[in-house]
Amino acid sequence: MAPVTVTLYGIYLSTCTRTVMTALEEKNVPYKFVIVDVTKGEGKQPAHLARQPFGQVPALEDGDVKMFETRAIVRYIANKWASQGTDLLGKTAAEKALTDTWTEVESQNYDPPISVIVAQRVFRAMHGKQADEAIVAQETTKLEKVLAVYDAHLADKEYLNGSSFSAADLSHLPNTDYYVNKGGGEVVLKKYPNVWAWWQRISSRPSWQKVAAMN
Amino acid sequence: MAPVTVTLYGIYLSTCTRTVMTALEEKNVPYKFVIVDVTKGEGKQPAHLARQPFGQVPALEDGDVKMFETRAIVRYIANKWASQGTDLLGKTAAEKALTDTWTEVESQNYDPPISVIVAQRVFRAMHGKQADEAIVAQETTKLEKVLAVYDAHLADKEYLNGSSFSAADLSHLPNTDYYVNKGGGEVVLKKYPNVWAWWQRISSRPSWQKVAAMN
Ligand SMILES: N[C@@H](CCC(=O)N[C@@H](CS)C(=O)NCC(=O)O)C(=O)O
Ligand SMILES: N[C@@H](CCC(=O)N[C@@H](CS)C(=O)NCC(=O)O)C(=O)O
Repeated sequence: MAPVTVTLYGIYLSTCTRTVMTALEEKNVPYKFVIVDVTKGEGKQPAHLARQPFGQVPALEDGDVKMFETRAIVRYIANKWASQGTDLLGKTAAEKALTDTWTEVESQNYDPPISVIVAQRVFRAMHGKQADEAIVAQETTKLEKVLAVYDAHLADKEYLNGSSFSAADLSHLPNTDYYVNKGGGEVVLKKYPNVWAWWQRISSRPSWQKVAAMN
Repeated sequence: MAPVTVTLYGIYLSTCTRTVMTALEEKNVPYKFVIVDVTKGEGKQPAHLARQPFGQVPALEDGDVKMFETRAIVRYIANKWASQGTDLLGKTAAEKALTDTWTEVESQNYDPPISVIVAQRVFRAMHGKQADEAIVAQETTKLEKVLAVYDAHLADKEYLNGSSFSAADLSHLPNTDYYVNKGGGEVVLKKYPNVWAWWQRISSRPSWQKVAAMN
Protein backbone atom coordinates (compact mmCIF):
# COMPACT_ATOMS: atom_id res chain seq x y z
CA MET A 1 0.00 0.00 0.00
CA ALA A 2 1.20 3.49 -0.85
CA PRO A 3 1.47 5.71 2.23
CA VAL A 4 -1.47 8.08 2.79
CA THR A 5 -0.22 11.58 1.95
CA VAL A 6 -3.55 13.36 1.45
CA THR A 7 -5.57 15.01 4.20
CA LEU A 8 -9.02 16.34 3.35
CA TYR A 9 -10.70 18.80 5.72
CA GLY A 10 -14.47 18.96 5.38
CA ILE A 11 -17.81 17.68 6.54
CA TYR A 12 -19.83 14.77 5.15
CA LEU A 13 -23.01 16.67 4.33
CA SER A 14 -21.28 19.45 2.38
CA THR A 15 -21.66 19.27 -1.37
CA CYS A 16 -18.15 20.70 -1.92
CA THR A 17 -16.56 18.10 0.34
CA ARG A 18 -18.48 15.33 -1.43
CA THR A 19 -17.23 16.47 -4.81
CA VAL A 20 -13.61 16.12 -3.67
CA MET A 21 -14.30 12.75 -1.99
CA THR A 22 -15.81 11.44 -5.23
CA ALA A 23 -12.72 12.50 -7.17
CA LEU A 24 -10.48 10.72 -4.63
CA GLU A 25 -12.63 7.56 -4.97
CA GLU A 26 -12.52 7.64 -8.77
CA LYS A 27 -8.74 7.92 -8.64
CA ASN A 28 -8.30 5.31 -5.87
CA VAL A 29 -6.37 7.80 -3.77
CA PRO A 30 -6.41 6.89 -0.06
CA TYR A 31 -6.84 9.87 2.26
CA LYS A 32 -7.26 10.92 5.83
CA PHE A 33 -10.52 12.78 6.50
CA VAL A 34 -10.59 15.45 9.21
CA ILE A 35 -13.99 16.84 10.11
CA VAL A 36 -14.27 20.62 10.34
CA ASP A 37 -17.84 21.21 11.43
CA VAL A 38 -18.69 24.50 9.75
CA THR A 39 -22.22 24.28 11.17
CA LYS A 40 -20.67 24.69 14.64
CA GLY A 41 -18.30 27.53 13.77
CA GLU A 42 -15.20 25.35 13.43
CA GLY A 43 -14.46 26.89 10.02
CA LYS A 44 -13.82 30.29 11.62
CA GLN A 45 -11.19 29.08 14.09
CA PRO A 46 -7.57 30.13 13.44
CA ALA A 47 -6.35 26.61 12.60
CA HIS A 48 -8.89 26.29 9.81
CA LEU A 49 -8.62 29.91 8.61
CA ALA A 50 -4.94 29.19 7.98
CA ARG A 51 -6.07 26.47 5.55
CA GLN A 52 -9.10 28.23 4.05
CA PRO A 53 -9.11 32.00 4.72
CA PHE A 54 -12.85 32.32 4.01
CA GLY A 55 -13.57 29.82 6.78
CA GLN A 56 -15.21 27.27 4.50
CA VAL A 57 -14.64 23.65 3.56
CA PRO A 58 -13.06 21.82 1.82
CA ALA A 59 -9.30 22.26 2.12
CA LEU A 60 -6.64 19.75 1.12
CA GLU A 61 -3.05 19.03 2.10
CA ASP A 62 -0.74 16.71 0.21
CA GLY A 63 2.87 17.08 1.38
CA ASP A 64 3.85 20.69 0.72
CA VAL A 65 0.77 21.30 -1.43
CA LYS A 66 -1.78 23.20 0.65
CA MET A 67 -4.84 24.34 -1.21
CA PHE A 68 -8.57 24.98 -1.17
CA GLU A 69 -11.46 25.60 -3.59
CA THR A 70 -13.34 22.49 -4.66
CA ARG A 71 -12.81 22.70 -8.42
CA ALA A 72 -9.12 23.53 -8.07
CA ILE A 73 -8.70 20.52 -5.76
CA VAL A 74 -10.47 18.22 -8.23
CA ARG A 75 -8.17 19.40 -11.05
CA TYR A 76 -5.16 18.84 -8.80
CA ILE A 77 -6.25 15.27 -8.04
CA ALA A 78 -7.12 14.55 -11.69
CA ASN A 79 -3.68 15.76 -12.81
CA LYS A 80 -1.46 14.37 -10.07
CA TRP A 81 -2.94 10.87 -10.33
CA ALA A 82 -3.59 11.10 -14.07
CA SER A 83 -2.47 7.54 -14.76
CA GLN A 84 -4.34 5.90 -11.86
CA GLY A 85 -8.06 5.08 -11.59
CA THR A 86 -10.58 6.76 -13.88
CA ASP A 87 -9.17 9.31 -16.31
CA LEU A 88 -11.00 12.50 -15.29
CA LEU A 89 -9.31 14.83 -17.79
CA GLY A 90 -10.25 13.53 -21.25
CA LYS A 91 -7.81 12.05 -23.73
CA THR A 92 -7.26 14.46 -26.62
CA ALA A 93 -6.56 18.17 -26.38
CA ALA A 94 -10.06 18.85 -27.67
CA GLU A 95 -11.64 16.62 -24.99
CA LYS A 96 -9.50 18.14 -22.23
CA ALA A 97 -10.63 21.62 -23.31
CA LEU A 98 -14.27 20.52 -23.12
CA THR A 99 -13.75 18.93 -19.70
CA ASP A 100 -12.50 22.24 -18.39
CA THR A 101 -15.15 24.25 -20.26
CA TRP A 102 -18.00 22.25 -18.73
CA THR A 103 -16.43 22.24 -15.27
CA GLU A 104 -16.59 26.03 -15.53
CA VAL A 105 -20.17 25.88 -16.81
CA GLU A 106 -21.07 23.97 -13.66
CA SER A 107 -19.42 26.69 -11.60
CA GLN A 108 -20.79 29.69 -13.50
CA ASN A 109 -24.23 28.59 -14.70
CA TYR A 110 -25.43 25.42 -12.99
CA ASP A 111 -24.26 25.82 -9.40
CA PRO A 112 -25.64 29.34 -8.73
CA PRO A 113 -29.34 28.43 -9.12
CA ILE A 114 -29.22 24.79 -7.96
CA SER A 115 -27.23 25.54 -4.81
CA VAL A 116 -29.77 28.17 -3.76
CA ILE A 117 -32.64 25.73 -4.32
CA VAL A 118 -30.82 23.02 -2.35
CA ALA A 119 -30.10 25.48 0.47
CA GLN A 120 -33.81 26.36 0.61
CA ARG A 121 -35.38 22.94 0.13
CA VAL A 122 -32.81 20.61 1.74
CA PHE A 123 -30.54 22.41 4.20
CA ARG A 124 -33.27 24.59 5.72
CA ALA A 125 -35.41 21.47 6.21
CA MET A 126 -32.50 19.79 8.05
CA HIS A 127 -32.75 22.65 10.56
CA GLY A 128 -36.55 22.45 10.74
CA LYS A 129 -37.06 25.58 8.64
CA GLN A 130 -39.44 26.15 5.72
CA ALA A 131 -38.16 26.89 2.23
CA ASP A 132 -38.86 30.34 0.78
CA GLU A 133 -40.80 29.15 -2.26
CA ALA A 134 -40.60 32.53 -4.01
CA ILE A 135 -36.81 32.15 -4.11
CA VAL A 136 -37.14 28.52 -5.24
CA ALA A 137 -39.45 29.55 -8.11
CA GLN A 138 -37.10 32.32 -9.26
CA GLU A 139 -34.03 30.06 -9.21
CA THR A 140 -35.94 27.21 -10.88
CA THR A 141 -36.63 29.48 -13.84
CA LYS A 142 -32.90 30.20 -14.12
CA LEU A 143 -31.99 26.53 -13.69
CA GLU A 144 -34.42 25.42 -16.41
CA LYS A 145 -32.73 27.75 -18.91
CA VAL A 146 -29.44 26.09 -18.06
CA LEU A 147 -30.98 22.60 -18.23
CA ALA A 148 -32.29 23.36 -21.72
CA VAL A 149 -28.72 24.12 -22.85
CA TYR A 150 -27.47 20.90 -21.25
CA ASP A 151 -30.27 18.92 -22.90
CA ALA A 152 -29.22 20.16 -26.35
CA HIS A 153 -25.54 19.60 -25.57
CA LEU A 154 -26.19 16.02 -24.37
CA ALA A 155 -28.44 15.11 -27.33
CA ASP A 156 -25.58 13.27 -29.03
CA LYS A 157 -23.25 12.70 -26.06
CA GLU A 158 -23.11 10.39 -23.07
CA TYR A 159 -20.91 12.75 -21.05
CA LEU A 160 -20.29 16.48 -21.00
CA ASN A 161 -16.86 16.38 -22.67
CA GLY A 162 -18.32 14.29 -25.49
CA SER A 163 -16.61 11.01 -24.80
CA SER A 164 -16.01 9.91 -21.24
CA PHE A 165 -16.95 10.54 -17.61
CA SER A 166 -14.75 13.39 -16.39
CA ALA A 167 -14.25 16.05 -13.74
CA ALA A 168 -16.98 18.04 -15.48
CA ASP A 169 -19.69 15.41 -14.87
CA LEU A 170 -18.37 14.67 -11.40
CA SER A 171 -18.77 18.22 -10.16
CA HIS A 172 -22.54 18.04 -10.78
CA LEU A 173 -23.15 15.03 -8.52
CA PRO A 174 -23.63 16.36 -4.98
CA ASN A 175 -26.02 19.24 -5.64
CA THR A 176 -28.02 17.31 -8.23
CA ASP A 177 -28.39 14.36 -5.86
CA TYR A 178 -29.79 16.56 -3.09
CA TYR A 179 -32.04 18.32 -5.59
CA VAL A 180 -33.42 15.13 -7.19
CA ASN A 181 -33.67 12.97 -4.08
CA LYS A 182 -34.50 15.47 -1.35
CA GLY A 183 -35.41 18.77 -3.03
CA GLY A 184 -38.24 17.86 -5.40
CA GLY A 185 -36.04 18.18 -8.49
CA GLU A 186 -36.86 14.85 -10.16
CA VAL A 187 -39.95 16.26 -11.87
CA VAL A 188 -37.89 19.21 -13.21
CA LEU A 189 -34.97 17.13 -14.49
CA LYS A 190 -37.30 14.65 -16.21
CA LYS A 191 -38.55 17.46 -18.45
CA TYR A 192 -35.09 17.30 -20.06
CA PRO A 193 -34.73 13.69 -21.22
CA ASN A 194 -31.07 13.85 -22.22
CA VAL A 195 -30.22 15.42 -18.87
CA TRP A 196 -32.23 12.76 -17.08
CA ALA A 197 -30.49 9.91 -18.95
CA TRP A 198 -27.09 11.51 -18.20
CA TRP A 199 -28.08 11.89 -14.54
CA GLN A 200 -28.91 8.15 -14.33
CA ARG A 201 -25.58 7.36 -15.95
CA ILE A 202 -23.38 9.47 -13.67
CA SER A 203 -25.24 8.96 -10.38
CA SER A 204 -24.98 5.18 -10.67
CA ARG A 205 -21.19 5.26 -10.47
CA PRO A 206 -19.81 3.28 -7.51
CA SER A 207 -17.68 6.26 -6.42
CA TRP A 208 -20.76 8.40 -5.98
CA GLN A 209 -22.86 5.63 -4.42
CA LYS A 210 -20.14 5.21 -1.82
CA VAL A 211 -19.82 8.94 -1.04
CA ALA A 212 -23.59 9.51 -0.95
CA ALA A 213 -23.91 6.82 1.71
CA MET A 214 -21.29 8.39 4.01
CA ASN A 215 -22.29 10.46 7.02
CA MET B 1 6.51 33.61 -37.79
CA ALA B 2 4.38 30.71 -36.56
CA PRO B 3 1.04 30.51 -38.40
CA VAL B 4 -1.92 32.00 -36.55
CA THR B 5 -4.05 29.08 -35.34
CA VAL B 6 -6.09 30.81 -32.64
CA THR B 7 -9.36 32.64 -33.22
CA LEU B 8 -10.88 34.57 -30.33
CA TYR B 9 -14.53 35.63 -30.49
CA GLY B 10 -15.42 38.53 -28.25
CA ILE B 11 -15.83 42.25 -27.88
CA TYR B 12 -13.22 44.78 -26.74
CA LEU B 13 -15.16 46.23 -23.82
CA SER B 14 -16.00 42.87 -22.22
CA THR B 15 -14.02 42.01 -19.12
CA CYS B 16 -14.03 38.29 -20.02
CA THR B 17 -12.66 38.92 -23.49
CA ARG B 18 -9.97 41.19 -22.04
CA THR B 19 -8.85 38.49 -19.63
CA VAL B 20 -8.24 36.08 -22.51
CA MET B 21 -6.52 38.76 -24.61
CA THR B 22 -4.16 39.51 -21.73
CA ALA B 23 -3.26 35.83 -21.43
CA LEU B 24 -2.53 35.66 -25.17
CA GLU B 25 -0.31 38.78 -24.87
CA GLU B 26 1.59 37.37 -21.89
CA LYS B 27 2.23 34.17 -23.85
CA ASN B 28 3.09 35.95 -27.14
CA VAL B 29 0.44 33.92 -28.95
CA PRO B 30 -0.72 35.63 -32.16
CA TYR B 31 -4.46 35.40 -32.76
CA LYS B 32 -7.27 36.46 -35.01
CA PHE B 33 -9.95 38.50 -33.26
CA VAL B 34 -13.55 38.23 -34.44
CA ILE B 35 -16.00 40.69 -32.93
CA VAL B 36 -19.29 39.26 -31.68
CA ASP B 37 -21.24 42.29 -30.52
CA VAL B 38 -23.28 40.90 -27.65
CA THR B 39 -24.71 44.38 -27.03
CA LYS B 40 -26.45 44.08 -30.43
CA GLY B 41 -27.75 40.52 -29.99
CA GLU B 42 -25.00 38.87 -32.06
CA GLY B 43 -24.33 36.41 -29.24
CA LYS B 44 -27.78 34.86 -29.67
CA GLN B 45 -27.39 34.09 -33.38
CA PRO B 46 -27.01 30.42 -34.36
CA ALA B 47 -23.40 30.75 -35.54
CA HIS B 48 -22.34 32.06 -32.13
CA LEU B 49 -24.62 29.77 -30.10
CA ALA B 50 -22.78 26.85 -31.74
CA ARG B 51 -19.59 28.22 -30.15
CA GLN B 52 -21.02 29.39 -26.82
CA PRO B 53 -24.45 27.88 -26.08
CA PHE B 54 -25.30 30.56 -23.49
CA GLY B 55 -24.85 33.24 -26.14
CA GLN B 56 -22.00 35.00 -24.37
CA VAL B 57 -18.40 35.89 -25.13
CA PRO B 58 -15.61 34.84 -25.20
CA ALA B 59 -15.18 31.66 -27.22
CA LEU B 60 -11.94 30.30 -28.64
CA GLU B 61 -10.96 28.00 -31.48
CA ASP B 62 -7.50 26.54 -31.97
CA GLY B 63 -7.50 23.80 -34.62
CA ASP B 64 -9.88 21.11 -33.39
CA VAL B 65 -10.04 22.64 -29.92
CA LYS B 66 -13.32 24.55 -29.59
CA MET B 67 -14.05 25.90 -26.17
CA PHE B 68 -15.53 28.69 -24.09
CA GLU B 69 -15.52 29.97 -20.48
CA THR B 70 -12.90 32.59 -19.70
CA ARG B 71 -11.02 30.78 -16.95
CA ALA B 72 -10.95 27.48 -18.85
CA ILE B 73 -9.55 29.31 -21.89
CA VAL B 74 -6.85 31.00 -19.80
CA ARG B 75 -5.79 27.62 -18.36
CA TYR B 76 -5.73 26.16 -21.87
CA ILE B 77 -3.46 28.95 -23.12
CA ALA B 78 -1.22 28.76 -20.04
CA ASN B 79 -0.76 25.00 -20.51
CA LYS B 80 -0.50 24.75 -24.29
CA TRP B 81 2.15 27.47 -24.51
CA ALA B 82 3.72 26.64 -21.13
CA SER B 83 7.27 27.15 -22.37
CA GLN B 84 6.65 30.41 -24.24
CA GLY B 85 6.25 33.95 -22.84
CA THR B 86 5.44 34.47 -19.17
CA ASP B 87 4.95 31.30 -17.11
CA LEU B 88 1.35 31.69 -15.90
CA LEU B 89 1.15 28.38 -14.01
CA GLY B 90 3.74 28.58 -11.23
CA LYS B 91 6.84 26.43 -11.03
CA THR B 92 6.50 23.89 -8.22
CA ALA B 93 3.50 21.67 -7.52
CA ALA B 94 2.72 23.82 -4.46
CA GLU B 95 2.78 27.02 -6.53
CA LYS B 96 0.65 25.52 -9.29
CA ALA B 97 -1.93 24.47 -6.69
CA LEU B 98 -2.03 28.03 -5.33
CA THR B 99 -2.35 29.49 -8.82
CA ASP B 100 -5.44 27.37 -9.40
CA THR B 101 -6.79 27.98 -5.89
CA TRP B 102 -6.64 31.77 -6.31
CA THR B 103 -8.02 31.66 -9.84
CA GLU B 104 -11.04 29.95 -8.28
CA VAL B 105 -11.15 32.53 -5.48
CA GLU B 106 -11.42 35.22 -8.15
CA SER B 107 -14.31 33.29 -9.70
CA GLN B 108 -16.14 32.40 -6.50
CA ASN B 109 -15.48 35.32 -4.14
CA TYR B 110 -14.05 38.35 -5.95
CA ASP B 111 -15.94 38.40 -9.24
CA PRO B 112 -19.51 38.15 -7.88
CA PRO B 113 -19.48 41.47 -5.99
CA ILE B 114 -17.06 43.43 -8.20
CA SER B 115 -18.81 42.51 -11.45
CA VAL B 116 -22.14 43.74 -10.09
CA ILE B 117 -20.57 47.04 -8.99
CA VAL B 118 -18.88 47.47 -12.40
CA ALA B 119 -22.18 46.68 -14.16
CA GLN B 120 -23.90 49.37 -12.07
CA ARG B 121 -21.25 52.07 -12.05
CA VAL B 122 -19.50 51.58 -15.40
CA PHE B 123 -21.68 49.72 -17.92
CA ARG B 124 -24.94 51.48 -16.99
CA ALA B 125 -23.17 54.83 -17.31
CA MET B 126 -21.99 53.85 -20.82
CA HIS B 127 -25.70 53.59 -21.70
CA GLY B 128 -26.56 56.85 -19.97
CA LYS B 129 -28.20 55.12 -17.00
CA GLN B 130 -27.77 55.80 -13.28
CA ALA B 131 -26.26 53.24 -10.93
CA ASP B 132 -28.53 51.73 -8.28
CA GLU B 133 -26.47 52.86 -5.28
CA ALA B 134 -28.30 50.53 -2.85
CA ILE B 135 -26.99 47.58 -4.86
CA VAL B 136 -23.52 49.14 -5.01
CA ALA B 137 -23.46 49.58 -1.22
CA GLN B 138 -24.55 46.00 -0.58
CA GLU B 139 -21.95 44.53 -2.96
CA THR B 140 -19.24 46.86 -1.63
CA THR B 141 -19.76 45.38 1.84
CA LYS B 142 -19.25 41.89 0.38
CA LEU B 143 -16.25 42.98 -1.67
CA GLU B 144 -14.55 44.56 1.36
CA LYS B 145 -14.76 41.27 3.26
CA VAL B 146 -13.01 39.62 0.33
CA LEU B 147 -10.44 42.44 0.09
CA ALA B 148 -9.59 41.99 3.78
CA VAL B 149 -8.75 38.32 3.09
CA TYR B 150 -6.62 39.34 0.10
CA ASP B 151 -4.85 41.98 2.17
CA ALA B 152 -3.82 39.39 4.77
CA HIS B 153 -2.84 36.88 2.07
CA LEU B 154 -0.70 39.47 0.25
CA ALA B 155 1.00 40.74 3.43
CA ASP B 156 4.10 38.66 2.69
CA LYS B 157 3.65 38.03 -1.05
CA GLU B 158 4.04 39.99 -4.26
CA TYR B 159 1.63 37.77 -6.19
CA LEU B 160 -1.32 35.54 -5.29
CA ASN B 161 0.49 32.22 -5.76
CA GLY B 162 3.27 33.43 -3.50
CA SER B 163 6.05 33.77 -6.01
CA SER B 164 5.26 34.98 -9.51
CA PHE B 165 2.67 36.70 -11.67
CA SER B 166 0.24 33.97 -12.79
CA ALA B 167 -3.18 33.23 -14.26
CA ALA B 168 -4.61 33.97 -10.80
CA ASP B 169 -3.44 37.61 -10.78
CA LEU B 170 -4.26 38.03 -14.45
CA SER B 171 -7.93 37.15 -14.03
CA HIS B 172 -8.40 40.12 -11.67
CA LEU B 173 -7.23 42.77 -14.16
CA PRO B 174 -10.28 43.74 -16.27
CA ASN B 175 -12.90 44.16 -13.53
CA THR B 176 -10.49 45.81 -11.11
CA ASP B 177 -9.38 48.26 -13.79
CA TYR B 178 -12.97 49.34 -14.52
CA TYR B 179 -13.67 49.53 -10.79
CA VAL B 180 -10.58 51.60 -9.91
CA ASN B 181 -10.46 53.85 -12.96
CA LYS B 182 -14.15 54.31 -13.85
CA GLY B 183 -16.20 52.96 -10.95
CA GLY B 184 -14.97 54.88 -7.91
CA GLY B 185 -13.07 51.92 -6.51
CA GLU B 186 -9.69 53.55 -5.89
CA VAL B 187 -10.75 54.85 -2.48
CA VAL B 188 -11.96 51.37 -1.48
CA LEU B 189 -8.87 49.51 -2.68
CA LYS B 190 -6.54 51.98 -0.95
CA LYS B 191 -8.01 50.95 2.41
CA TYR B 192 -6.18 47.63 1.85
CA PRO B 193 -2.52 48.62 1.38
CA ASN B 194 -1.24 45.20 0.33
CA VAL B 195 -4.02 44.90 -2.22
CA TRP B 196 -3.26 48.39 -3.51
CA ALA B 197 0.48 47.62 -3.88
CA TRP B 198 -0.39 44.36 -5.68
CA TRP B 199 -2.81 46.24 -7.94
CA GLN B 200 -0.06 48.72 -8.93
CA ARG B 201 2.26 45.79 -9.64
CA ILE B 202 -0.10 43.79 -11.84
CA SER B 203 -1.83 46.66 -13.65
CA SER B 204 1.48 48.09 -14.84
CA ARG B 205 2.26 45.00 -16.93
CA PRO B 206 2.72 45.80 -20.63
CA SER B 207 0.24 43.04 -21.57
CA TRP B 208 -2.51 44.72 -19.62
CA GLN B 209 -1.56 48.24 -20.72
CA LYS B 210 -1.87 47.08 -24.31
CA VAL B 211 -5.24 45.37 -23.83
CA ALA B 212 -6.71 48.22 -21.76
CA ALA B 213 -5.94 50.63 -24.61
CA MET B 214 -7.76 48.52 -27.25
CA ASN B 215 -11.24 49.42 -28.43
N1 LIG C 1 -15.89 28.28 -3.41
C1 LIG C 1 -15.76 27.34 -2.32
C2 LIG C 1 -17.07 27.30 -1.59
C3 LIG C 1 -17.00 26.46 -0.36
C4 LIG C 1 -18.33 26.38 0.37
O1 LIG C 1 -19.33 27.02 -0.01
N2 LIG C 1 -18.32 25.56 1.42
C5 LIG C 1 -19.50 25.36 2.22
C6 LIG C 1 -19.87 23.90 2.29
S1 LIG C 1 -20.30 23.23 0.67
C7 LIG C 1 -19.20 25.86 3.61
O2 LIG C 1 -18.08 25.70 4.12
N3 LIG C 1 -20.18 26.49 4.25
C8 LIG C 1 -20.07 27.02 5.57
C9 LIG C 1 -19.83 28.51 5.59
O3 LIG C 1 -19.83 29.14 4.51
O4 LIG C 1 -19.67 29.04 6.69
C10 LIG C 1 -15.39 25.96 -2.86
O5 LIG C 1 -15.88 25.61 -3.95
O6 LIG C 1 -14.63 25.24 -2.21
N1 LIG D 1 -18.93 32.41 -17.43
C1 LIG D 1 -18.70 33.10 -18.67
C2 LIG D 1 -19.38 34.46 -18.60
C3 LIG D 1 -19.28 35.19 -19.88
C4 LIG D 1 -19.93 36.56 -19.80
O1 LIG D 1 -20.50 36.96 -18.76
N2 LIG D 1 -19.78 37.29 -20.90
C5 LIG D 1 -20.33 38.62 -21.01
C6 LIG D 1 -19.26 39.63 -21.37
S1 LIG D 1 -17.99 39.73 -20.08
C7 LIG D 1 -21.39 38.61 -22.10
O2 LIG D 1 -21.25 37.95 -23.13
N3 LIG D 1 -22.47 39.35 -21.87
C8 LIG D 1 -23.56 39.45 -22.80
C9 LIG D 1 -24.73 38.58 -22.43
O3 LIG D 1 -24.71 37.92 -21.37
O4 LIG D 1 -25.70 38.57 -23.22
C10 LIG D 1 -17.18 33.27 -18.90
O5 LIG D 1 -16.46 33.44 -17.91
O6 LIG D 1 -16.72 33.20 -20.05
